Amino acid sequence: MRITKASIENAHERIQPYIHNTPVLTNQSINDLSGIEFYFKCENFQKIGAFKIRGGMNASLKITPEQISKGVATHSSGNHAQAMAYAGKILNTKAYIVMPSNSPEVKVNAVIGYGAEVTMCAPNQQAREETLNAIVEKTGATFIHPYDNDDVIEGQATCVKELLTEVPNVEIVITPVGGGGLLSGTCLGAHFFKPSVQVYAGEPEGAADAVLSLQTGKVEKAAYVNTIADGLLTTLSERTLAIIKEHVADILLVSDEEIKGAMRLIYERMKIIVEPSCVVPFAAALKNPTLFKGKKVGIILTGGNVDLAKLGEWFK
Amino acid sequence: MRITKASIENAHERIQPYIHNTPVLTNQSINDLSGIEFYFKCENFQKIGAFKIRGGMNASLKITPEQISKGVATHSSGNHAQAMAYAGKILNTKAYIVMPSNSPEVKVNAVIGYGAEVTMCAPNQQAREETLNAIVEKTGATFIHPYDNDDVIEGQATCVKELLTEVPNVEIVITPVGGGGLLSGTCLGAHFFKPSVQVYAGEPEGAADAVLSLQTGKVEKAAYVNTIADGLLTTLSERTLAIIKEHVADILLVSDEEIKGAMRLIYERMKIIVEPSCVVPFAAALKNPTLFKGKKVGIILTGGNVDLAKLGEWFK
Repeated sequence: MRITKASIENAHERIQPYIHNTPVLTNQSINDLSGIEFYFKCENFQKIGAFKIRGGMNASLKITPEQISKGVATHSSGNHAQAMAYAGKILNTKAYIVMPSNSPEVKVNAVIGYGAEVTMCAPNQQAREETLNAIVEKTGATFIHPYDNDDVIEGQATCVKELLTEVPNVEIVITPVGGGGLLSGTCLGAHFFKPSVQVYAGEPEGAADAVLSLQTGKVEKAAYVNTIADGLLTTLSERTLAIIKEHVADILLVSDEEIKGAMRLIYERMKIIVEPSCVVPFAAALKNPTLFKGKKVGIILTGGNVDLAKLGEWFK
Repeated sequence: MRITKASIENAHERIQPYIHNTPVLTNQSINDLSGIEFYFKCENFQKIGAFKIRGGMNASLKITPEQISKGVATHSSGNHAQAMAYAGKILNTKAYIVMPSNSPEVKVNAVIGYGAEVTMCAPNQQAREETLNAIVEKTGATFIHPYDNDDVIEGQATCVKELLTEVPNVEIVITPVGGGGLLSGTCLGAHFFKPSVQVYAGEPEGAADAVLSLQTGKVEKAAYVNTIADGLLTTLSERTLAIIKEHVADILLVSDEEIKGAMRLIYERMKIIVEPSCVVPFAAALKNPTLFKGKKVGIILTGGNVDLAKLGEWFK
């Protein structure tokens, strides 16, 4: 394992000038009605509106100056795309971003806004990879995978490190799981900085590959993909699964209705904007009171990049 | 004038146990695109989701135990209603709230949630006053007016006091103006705690009574009332006008389209939920760059109580 306690500490120092140490919010009325003591680590207030800047920035800062001069590249429908576009801007180099044609408009606009070169492709894994490979071949840019990359995982691990510094007595941390970059980073961060902390994940029923992969022990695809949590459609990689298998307490499924209910609670009570993907762990906690009641539970609120036009659909 | 520097300090101490010292947020991208250095005092994160708790709580804590035992009463379509309902809960007494039938559902529910007794009435001033008078006569409850009350104004003044403590080099403060409770309190707070600060107000074109009252020097009604800023429909009182006339730098009008644009900017860039009434001063600042460019401008974001079902209308 290349990722160690020291390497996460170094990563944190490396990315510190480019990220916010985001606030941890609490809400009395949510605690009262759930019986759970929640600590929300607000990565929706992070640079680019999501935690992904941590991994993207860490990986970008670790490549050589020669690599940097040729640019960075990735494929992503959303927040990792923004993270790499922002990294390109900071490093004063080109960022080549492949985005599927169903990416939320607000995210595409943000990527362009950071000066990245956006290539749209068909909304499937094969098109994403082929388009990206062609660009990398032509430009010599360094591909930074959204999650199948140790430096990205190491960067994501800095989030739970901050949470445990701010609220040292947290007993449980829950993250969403898509490709598993944040979840595996959080598993390692908790393991190194406070081993007694249990790490859970929340996953949408309509993208339930991680829970299946945990059962069979190998990377699986979801039985079907249909969820409003558009940031969690990807499948685990061998790398993220290996870490998750070793460390995660459990992965808990939630329905889209439960996601919407949890989102409504956060909008109404906390007055903050979060993405559907982002409230999945909170929805999972509310659904499983026997696991979490009376506990101090840290929730990583991963991002707040929503197409405002969608709000009318979600909150009828 | 009963309100003094010392009385505002006392009010702050009096209400401190019941309110949040709300955070002041900044946003680099909004500063970059406007050329103004904004400091947002986030009263949307306040108890009951709005600054109104400051005035309502201060006034409630200043009445006698005998008065308290008979309950408190008010008429309000929204946030002052919640404030008085919450005050009733804290003081362990009855709160009688008269609400017009067009009050946002989320606010009516919140008032009921705090255990207040809600009486609905027709949506006009006369019906509000008659219904309230009947209740006060029957119960002996103490009427606490939403803004035509020195103790309420004194409580609202604590908000700018906190802002000036957190960001001492603010040069300008802008608030919305409805009945003028917050604006007159802010005028007095700035006058006592940092006299060099200029206080401006933003007002919707569709409820432009304050700007007119400032011109003629007496309390005027708006030429017409039609705006999404549902918290700013009330007219000034003699009491609030007198303070505003003496201290305000200017009152700036904005259209509903400008309010929506400003709201979109805050939702997208800051990831926080604010009411239409609440972004009026921010919209006014964006509309008048010659007044504010290069300046350190404090904006009191007054509240975040929105009917989520409305979001679909506002952000098409």
